[in-house]
Amino acid sequence: MIKMGVIGCGYWGPNLIRNFHNNPEVEIVAIADIDSDRLTRVGGLYPNATQTADHRDIVNDPSVDAVVVATPVSSHYPLGMDVLQSGKHLFLEKPMAASAEECRRLNDAADKGGLVIMVGHTFLFAPAVRKIKALMADGDLGDIYYVSITRVNLGIFQKDVNVVWDLAPHDVAMLNHLFGANPTVVSATGRSYVQVEKGIEDVAFVTLEYPGRQIAHIHVSWLDPNKIRQMTFVGSRKMLVYDDVSPTEKIKVYDKGVEIQPHYDSFGEFQLQLRSGDIFSPRVDMAEPLKIEAQHFVDVIKGDAEAITSGQQGLEVVEVLEKACQSIKDDGQPVELVQGI
Amino acid sequence: MIKMGVIGCGYWGPNLIRNFHNNPEVEIVAIADIDSDRLTRVGGLYPNATQTADHRDIVNDPSVDAVVVATPVSSHYPLGMDVLQSGKHLFLEKPMAASAEECRRLNDAADKGGLVIMVGHTFLFAPAVRKIKALMADGDLGDIYYVSITRVNLGIFQKDVNVVWDLAPHDVAMLNHLFGANPTVVSATGRSYVQVEKGIEDVAFVTLEYPGRQIAHIHVSWLDPNKIRQMTFVGSRKMLVYDDVSPTEKIKVYDKGVEIQPHYDSFGEFQLQLRSGDIFSPRVDMAEPLKIEAQHFVDVIKGDAEAITSGQQGLEVVEVLEKACQSIKDDGQPVELVQGI
Amino acid sequence: MIKMGVIGCGYWGPNLIRNFHNNPEVEIVAIADIDSDRLTRVGGLYPNATQTADHRDIVNDPSVDAVVVATPVSSHYPLGMDVLQSGKHLFLEKPMAASAEECRRLNDAADKGGLVIMVGHTFLFAPAVRKIKALMADGDLGDIYYVSITRVNLGIFQKDVNVVWDLAPHDVAMLNHLFGANPTVVSATGRSYVQVEKGIEDVAFVTLEYPGRQIAHIHVSWLDPNKIRQMTFVGSRKMLVYDDVSPTEKIKVYDKGVEIQPHYDSFGEFQLQLRSGDIFSPRVDMAEPLKIEAQHFVDVIKGDAEAITSGQQGLEVVEVLEKACQSIKDDGQPVELVQGI
Amino acid sequence: MIKMGVIGCGYWGPNLIRNFHNNPEVEIVAIADIDSDRLTRVGGLYPNATQTADHRDIVNDPSVDAVVVATPVSSHYPLGMDVLQSGKHLFLEKPMAASAEECRRLNDAADKGGLVIMVGHTFLFAPAVRKIKALMADGDLGDIYYVSITRVNLGIFQKDVNVVWDLAPHDVAMLNHLFGANPTVVSATGRSYVQVEKGIEDVAFVTLEYPGRQIAHIHVSWLDPNKIRQMTFVGSRKMLVYDDVSPTEKIKVYDKGVEIQPHYDSFGEFQLQLRSGDIFSPRVDMAEPLKIEAQHFVDVIKGDAEAITSGQQGLEVVEVLEKACQSIKDDGQPVELVQGI
Repeated sequence: MIKMGVIGCGYWGPNLIRNFHNNPEVEIVAIADIDSDRLTRVGGLYPNATQTADHRDIVNDPSVDAVVVATPVSSHYPLGMDVLQSGKHLFLEKPMAASAEECRRLNDAADKGGLVIMVGHTFLFAPAVRKIKALMADGDLGDIYYVSITRVNLGIFQKDVNVVWDLAPHDVAMLNHLFGANPTVVSATGRSYVQVEKGIEDVAFVTLEYPGRQIAHIHVSWLDPNKIRQMTFVGSRKMLVYDDVSPTEKIKVYDKGVEIQPHYDSFGEFQLQLRSGDIFSPRVDMAEPLKIEAQHFVDVIKGDAEAITSGQQGLEVVEVLEKACQSIKDDGQPVELVQGI
Repeated sequence: MIKMGVIGCGYWGPNLIRNFHNNPEVEIVAIADIDSDRLTRVGGLYPNATQTADHRDIVNDPSVDAVVVATPVSSHYPLGMDVLQSGKHLFLEKPMAASAEECRRLNDAADKGGLVIMVGHTFLFAPAVRKIKALMADGDLGDIYYVSITRVNLGIFQKDVNVVWDLAPHDVAMLNHLFGANPTVVSATGRSYVQVEKGIEDVAFVTLEYPGRQIAHIHVSWLDPNKIRQMTFVGSRKMLVYDDVSPTEKIKVYDKGVEIQPHYDSFGEFQLQLRSGDIFSPRVDMAEPLKIEAQHFVDVIKGDAEAITSGQQGLEVVEVLEKACQSIKDDGQPVELVQGI
Repeated sequence: MIKMGVIGCGYWGPNLIRNFHNNPEVEIVAIADIDSDRLTRVGGLYPNATQTADHRDIVNDPSVDAVVVATPVSSHYPLGMDVLQSGKHLFLEKPMAASAEECRRLNDAADKGGLVIMVGHTFLFAPAVRKIKALMADGDLGDIYYVSITRVNLGIFQKDVNVVWDLAPHDVAMLNHLFGANPTVVSATGRSYVQVEKGIEDVAFVTLEYPGRQIAHIHVSWLDPNKIRQMTFVGSRKMLVYDDVSPTEKIKVYDKGVEIQPHYDSFGEFQLQLRSGDIFSPRVDMAEPLKIEAQHFVDVIKGDAEAITSGQQGLEVVEVLEKACQSIKDDGQPVELVQGI
Repeated sequence: MIKMGVIGCGYWGPNLIRNFHNNPEVEIVAIADIDSDRLTRVGGLYPNATQTADHRDIVNDPSVDAVVVATPVSSHYPLGMDVLQSGKHLFLEKPMAASAEECRRLNDAADKGGLVIMVGHTFLFAPAVRKIKALMADGDLGDIYYVSITRVNLGIFQKDVNVVWDLAPHDVAMLNHLFGANPTVVSATGRSYVQVEKGIEDVAFVTLEYPGRQIAHIHVSWLDPNKIRQMTFVGSRKMLVYDDVSPTEKIKVYDKGVEIQPHYDSFGEFQLQLRSGDIFSPRVDMAEPLKIEAQHFVDVIKGDAEAITSGQQGLEVVEVLEKACQSIKDDGQPVELVQGI
């Protein structure tokens, strides 16, 4: 039984607590939050866990094996350092930290202590993403030409980081994972419309170039009326659309199909000719990704698996976010990324 | 009764012929195409129109009042010039010509001859676009922050122009019309995956900045598995999504609605909280835009209306396309547009 | 070249005229309608066809080979009889006539004259229906258990027939065609809400039993807010949904897939578990069914094909409609159909 | 603090336990199930509750105030009786019991003991249903003509009751609630395709007539490839579609709008004319209905509210189910319901 403490039970923390609590190999022994209302509300659901406003009560408790940190990004580094230096394994919500430099230091501390760091890039545990990975490995899509991503929704603004730091980590983590490579060049355009005075961008368009000549274009926004989480993979053989919001058809694979007959005799035929090949929508398991992610952290701690979302992966994502924001500052000037960091 | 000739009955020409034929004030007297198969097939439906392989038979026919040119872009300028110099009114398919310089010369020729030039920016006649224009004029959306556009589909490749010249004219024409202004800066990224050796880009991401600080981002592609024609307008008061492919809800207007409660007790509540306000989908007339466009050309010729899609509008669109392609060549470097051209 | 006359250019007639006009083996020589406005408007598009208010001008014209009748149902019998008795082939819009008795007489007259009768059950020419027929023949679906059909939409009321006569012919024709059999028992419930005083039902629920123990349930309505044209085929091996309104995925075939895990740990998993197998959406040709139907009539006249929608098929559909209405009158009492009529 | 016991933690029980556990006024003190695996798994999440295989341990525990019964229908009566006779309040999952007679006895026992019975007709607590109730009360829809319901999905078969008992209770409870009346006549057709030898119907079509001449038609099935939970309300002024599966637009209200122009000049205009009025989709709160239901049970026990889904409502639903099954046995013969039972 792994004894676990959780620091932060705001927006995302309760989901982590619930999933670790439901895991038969984990016991949540302590929960910390500086907001006493949240602490009482969430803690009340887990009466066997102690509640504290001071994270050091968890860090200094020798019976705790591992700590989950689900707090604002700016506190990931100091809290994570405290956890590692007390000799405990660390689960950090994404993005890993506020800078690549902070990520490197956390990784160094974990290496020295022989401790596990895992970063909460949840999508890598989504059954749909695993299915896409498998389809790509099978060569179903052929060579990937480009990926076009829209990750937008209304109204959950962050106050400490911009929309790139908030939403793009999902996409960068998935792309790096699916391509098995990191981007070489990043360019981005961003604007701040709502939090203008703070200069926090709420909409951005980010372009990544990967070593295999693939482009990935990511549109992130906090201002869009719809929650859209859509990735279109265009390959030389087939195309794939991953719509994470669809309740029934998360993945659709499109055959290229026959030539489109180019002459139409009526407005109707023209309007309606929207596709040309077969469509296949494979079954995707509906398991909650966080449940799988929680089990993975357990397996990594036990030495039964190597972290899919290790500190190294977390660092590589943060590198891209940093350069994307640099490009926004430079009016879209492309920024190169050093490989093998 | 306006006697009309049509040059070009390939992909789009038949739609123009059918709509002008159905107009009670127009008589199609002649059809020209260098492809005799197309000419025979399309001409056969209009037995009262003469058929010719040589457009000069139309241009030189003194009984013809106006000529429709629906040929590849590269021939718009020479054919259009022939039409104007023979003293006939001219309807040119979009984009108006292969360069801004060509557009200016055509406009000059029309001015000198006191002739009408109209460019086939069909979407400006779509009832949905007129509805959007009205909603914007009423202040329903507040200040527009940005517009995000996806105009993609599979398989109708052009061989003489890239995807920006093929698909973006629709968006640039609509944006200029809806904002009542031209963009000040253009940047674009493009790639050629299928017609690599020719260097014809089949996917591109174009960013336009308008004088009111608005951004418009346009994603065009010939490689996407789905036909998507979607524009999302994000305003300070409301948002609007125009989905031209939707058979039932082309326009949706989204209220911002109340604050989202930021804490969820379960995965389900979190997953399902996709929106926060009311949605309104106004009735949009289903009239074929080309029918309205055809009537408009008639009205302009008769002096009853001023062209909404005049040669000046056509020129302003081509200016943007030119600069976008220049930016693609320069790896995304922003290009400024001179106003008041 | 088949010389053809058309009687009736109201709601559906123009579609027939356009498709026969576009057929290279047909010449539309005359159009009749008692509404002079409609006649002038539609006739104006086909200047080479003579216009007449009196259908006898067509029937008595010895140069006419075949006549299309697209008028209200009540006139199908007298007009059809006139056509056949003048020795011309007959295309009748669906439903074939106002009673089974009328259908039988028309068939007798055609037999005696050695003439073709074809009924406009257009859906049998829809590429999607042909695809379904092929999938069923291949055994993909296994044994069909039941078919559930919704064919509803808003506002196109008929004044001379009820909603069963108006909309259900499509479904009965398709079911008879796909099952290769006629129903044995019919029961139906119907209500009149809008045209109450006339007693014309505007909504009905019809249940058909086929010889193979299959049930088909048809919901027809003129009052539904949406245009829905959906058929769900539930088979022992797979299921198929045919959504005629979908622009991109008219046919979807569903695998049964694995067992559903019956215990959920959260509301989200429960809510989202909406399906269990793969989905396949085959490409369906977008050709206009009427174009294929028109060609089929030509082929039948020329002796190159046997009518898929012959007078016999037309009669069998009308038999079902008659019995369904009898059941409505009898408060849903099941009515048996004599086989081999 | 209400001390609560739960009998049954199979399919639906865990959802009830979770929601009552999350309610600050409830303490789950004991959980019973005869399946020791389920008991251990679910019980493990609530370490403070005692676990037992014998429901009498809960019934006989004097510290328990109220008991939730979430077991197969056939055991509702004996278990519920035990609960009531021990002087505890009773929450019964739907349907209330296996016959109207059983329901009446349970209600009598509760009356005698001055105890609360509440039945788990969860949908009455769904924010969407409350919204519909409010829209109907405001007269937005005018007089309701008919309601057409589809409640189907694949693969969750029951082994002790048929599909009418399994799925239709939701609809009957909602209809009775929304109309404020019980049906007067019931007719139904049903078939058993999968569990043929047991004679358990897996698909059924049920028609209810309400006192105000409204018809409600309910299609229930365990065999449909899709999970559909859709209710269409057709009123004299507007129509409303409630799609419980839609993540974003659960309710859509349709204006009737203008007359449809009955003549189309092209296939495209015809195909695309799918609606005629404005559509309004009001915001619907995404709260989990079970959370509201749990709170309601608490409020009723405390005397702060009267049960919306009381034993009387539960009885009235079961009456309809009984008569529907009688009609299925009688090949669709209509069965009258005595009012004021």
